Amino acid sequence: MRDIQSEHDPRNIPLRKVGVSDVVYPIRVMDRKNGFQNTVSKIKMFVDLPQEFRGTHMSRFVEVLNKHHSNMNIGNLESILEDMKKSLKAHTAHIEVRFTYFILKEAPVSRIESFLNYECAFIASKGKKFDFILEVNTPVHNLCPCSKEISDFGAHNQRGNVKVQVRMKRLVWIEDIVEISESSASAPLFTLLKREDEKFITEKAYSNPKFVEDVVRDVSKVLDKDERITFYTIEATNHESIHNHNAYACTEVNKI
Amino acid sequence: MRDIQSEHDPRNIPLRKVGVSDVVYPIRVMDRKNGFQNTVSKIKMFVDLPQEFRGTHMSRFVEVLNKHHSNMNIGNLESILEDMKKSLKAHTAHIEVRFTYFILKEAPVSRIESFLNYECAFIASKGKKFDFILEVNTPVHNLCPCSKEISDFGAHNQRGNVKVQVRMKRLVWIEDIVEISESSASAPLFTLLKREDEKFITEKAYSNPKFVEDVVRDVSKVLDKDERITFYTIEATNHESIHNHNAYACTEVNKI
Amino acid sequence: MRDIQSEHDPRNIPLRKVGVSDVVYPIRVMDRKNGFQNTVSKIKMFVDLPQEFRGTHMSRFVEVLNKHHSNMNIGNLESILEDMKKSLKAHTAHIEVRFTYFILKEAPVSRIESFLNYECAFIASKGKKFDFILEVNTPVHNLCPCSKEISDFGAHNQRGNVKVQVRMKRLVWIEDIVEISESSASAPLFTLLKREDEKFITEKAYSNPKFVEDVVRDVSKVLDKDERITFYTIEATNHESIHNHNAYACTEVNKI
Amino acid sequence: MRDIQSEHDPRNIPLRKVGVSDVVYPIRVMDRKNGFQNTVSKIKMFVDLPQEFRGTHMSRFVEVLNKHHSNMNIGNLESILEDMKKSLKAHTAHIEVRFTYFILKEAPVSRIESFLNYECAFIASKGKKFDFILEVNTPVHNLCPCSKEISDFGAHNQRGNVKVQVRMKRLVWIEDIVEISESSASAPLFTLLKREDEKFITEKAYSNPKFVEDVVRDVSKVLDKDERITFYTIEATNHESIHNHNAYACTEVNKI
Repeated sequence: MRDIQSEHDPRNIPLRKVGVSDVVYPIRVMDRKNGFQNTVSKIKMFVDLPQEFRGTHMSRFVEVLNKHHSNMNIGNLESILEDMKKSLKAHTAHIEVRFTYFILKEAPVSRIESFLNYECAFIASKGKKFDFILEVNTPVHNLCPCSKEISDFGAHNQRGNVKVQVRMKRLVWIEDIVEISESSASAPLFTLLKREDEKFITEKAYSNPKFVEDVVRDVSKVLDKDERITFYTIEATNHESIHNHNAYACTEVNKI
Repeated sequence: MRDIQSEHDPRNIPLRKVGVSDVVYPIRVMDRKNGFQNTVSKIKMFVDLPQEFRGTHMSRFVEVLNKHHSNMNIGNLESILEDMKKSLKAHTAHIEVRFTYFILKEAPVSRIESFLNYECAFIASKGKKFDFILEVNTPVHNLCPCSKEISDFGAHNQRGNVKVQVRMKRLVWIEDIVEISESSASAPLFTLLKREDEKFITEKAYSNPKFVEDVVRDVSKVLDKDERITFYTIEATNHESIHNHNAYACTEVNKI
Repeated sequence: MRDIQSEHDPRNIPLRKVGVSDVVYPIRVMDRKNGFQNTVSKIKMFVDLPQEFRGTHMSRFVEVLNKHHSNMNIGNLESILEDMKKSLKAHTAHIEVRFTYFILKEAPVSRIESFLNYECAFIASKGKKFDFILEVNTPVHNLCPCSKEISDFGAHNQRGNVKVQVRMKRLVWIEDIVEISESSASAPLFTLLKREDEKFITEKAYSNPKFVEDVVRDVSKVLDKDERITFYTIEATNHESIHNHNAYACTEVNKI
Repeated sequence: MRDIQSEHDPRNIPLRKVGVSDVVYPIRVMDRKNGFQNTVSKIKMFVDLPQEFRGTHMSRFVEVLNKHHSNMNIGNLESILEDMKKSLKAHTAHIEVRFTYFILKEAPVSRIESFLNYECAFIASKGKKFDFILEVNTPVHNLCPCSKEISDFGAHNQRGNVKVQVRMKRLVWIEDIVEISESSASAPLFTLLKREDEKFITEKAYSNPKFVEDVVRDVSKVLDKDERITFYTIEATNHESIHNHNAYACTEVNKI
């Protein structure tokens, strides 16, 4: 059978990235407490395409996935990228793996446990050097400082999201980023709260009002001091309870 | 050219609904204040398919849309359905039109104006009789009565949604449903609020705590008394600010 | 602390369903081949609320989930519902668990294996009697019979989805529904296909053209004969490659 | 009332962007044929926040929107950004306006007309200089060259999307980008096709097979020659009809 993809392309246009997206696949990721956890991921895998070839070989991306038995962690992403480069005869390879990560959390007073879901991503590439970005989305509770200050009683508050991306020189756990993000918001979220916990969280948030701007700056202060981290972006979004739109703040710092 | 769709089907299985879905189309809907407004809709159009025919003629649905110049209102939906039945030789016709509807609202203190978006739908069908359901989703602000009661200060609150579907015997405006839903929640939402408005809304919500259960019951009480309305469903959802999941309540009442 | 939820409600309005929605939770479901598989789910849990109570106790829903260690299968859903009724002092309980289910499939010629994802749901309720619906969404490949017939060469084809819901009196596996849906479409989908497989699938689909109407009827014929199944709905949707909208057909049959 | 946002912030951290996101607002955009069209948009508006201020004033963003009467086009975006800078005392301002744009198209043989929807965006910013990016997503029909070549009959094809972003020195219409994208795919899409049109489109696509790589390169060739355009990115995605995932290719060229 003819291999059209390998045929010469006359247009003389190299492509940055070619490959597959929205591959839904079962994966196993590292878990700080339990060694690993099984989850469901949505994956993008791309390589560059030199100008002389007409197309890439889409099936080889999934073959690389299978070869690694769906294990996804900072330790083997580089070899996945190497395999992509080799299998597809490419100079650069990119992978993005988005997944739901669960952490078993204790309620603040009752100590009752429940899982909370964090949407995370590994974004990695390899040309000559290996590059790895960890993304962690932490849902949080934020109470508006302005509303508290100007109102005789109450203060509007809402669910928000803190999205952090980091480059690192030593291992940073998903749990580490979650802890930093939760402690920079008015209060953390829990799936299961008894009445004494709800009282605690309500009062904690009211005592600890935060704009999205505050959340970004408070996460930023901690990441600045963390010597494992060489680069970060922080985006905070509040699903404003008084509006039908969101409040947003972000920053980006490259320490090198 | 052969008309395969019209050929005899030997399987002897009539189909409830066949047609098109996710047709994104510009439409013009009635507006209580301005006569009409232009908006963007996502449309489903279906007819029944008798057992003797192999397929329906998908292009005719869009021809019916065009014939009506994209006007969509309770007054002409019946003739759209009639045209679908005639054009497709069917016994029953169904249409569902989902669209964003804007209302220009005044902030409660500053009286400054801004648009707020309400996701609405017309769901209509005609067999022998014409049936019409109006759906209006009203985003609202709800403050938790339990959190207020048990906490020494503050109370968690959040954005929520009130989804109402009604059958009517006399015209009910989208604006009518929005007003009922907003007045049954802790406070309404606005796109533009100055500081004096934010103070007003914050205090109003704190003085007016509502569970999702309360919202459903309070909307229900008003719809029960409204003689234009013969059937309704109410669903209230709170995007809980202390959880990463939602609180939900619903009811359904057929007055006939 | 006051238990506001348990206080008497004067409005005299019972609610059909109150509870939690969009709870993202790790679960373990039965797998025909491997005993079970771990996956990620989105859960709704509701009970009825008698008119005399002001609100339900949202935390108890998650406590029931935890008590069952996140096991979800037809065998223990009834006891989950019983626990909900008991814990929340309700007459009826409802649960809906949506999850991604993976099946390891062999390519048709090369026999190379890969996982394909199927979005599934368990929808169960218990008042006096236990009711259980299994929903399976099977992505498929459909080629248009009309386009094939009227064109001198080629035929438009596209990805589609077959959504089947069944009530059963004896166990029906997710895999059973997938097999019926795939064999009723022009061709099944695979995550990994080598060139010989792609040739096979292309020719198979061209030899086996199917309207959405055909898919629904062909699934219907099989489900009619399946004595384990007492009720079914079938919805077929094609993401038309010549349009920016979908073609749709559905039916519903209650055998009892 | 205290203006907390304007108070001094001790953390010494400037923020890149602060503002509002997901503002759903009615807008009016320029239309090559009819002067303008009304549509629905989702808007982000951000400014930078110097280190000395604690927060931005979220309401002023919507005030700027209102001042411009919801008109959005390349001609007035710069003055919207200027107003944001002035109103919020910022050095840089950013706006992103995503909207559905409709073009009335004629079917290729029957000449029957229907609207097709194109998801577009204006992405603009102003620090010292004004920067404007037009994004146009064109849904298309692509037929696989490999499948056609290796199969004895038929070829798999599917709906795809071509996303183009351009910077320009003279006006480029949305319609211009749509025409380039459609002519680089196997065939364009239409909402309304009669049987003779379906035959035409089916045969055209079969005669004109395209990988996502081909689409990107063919759009690239045209944009390279277009002297109005100074920068572009092209992303082509195919919703593969033989897989449950997508094929993807992209490139980016800065001509300056």
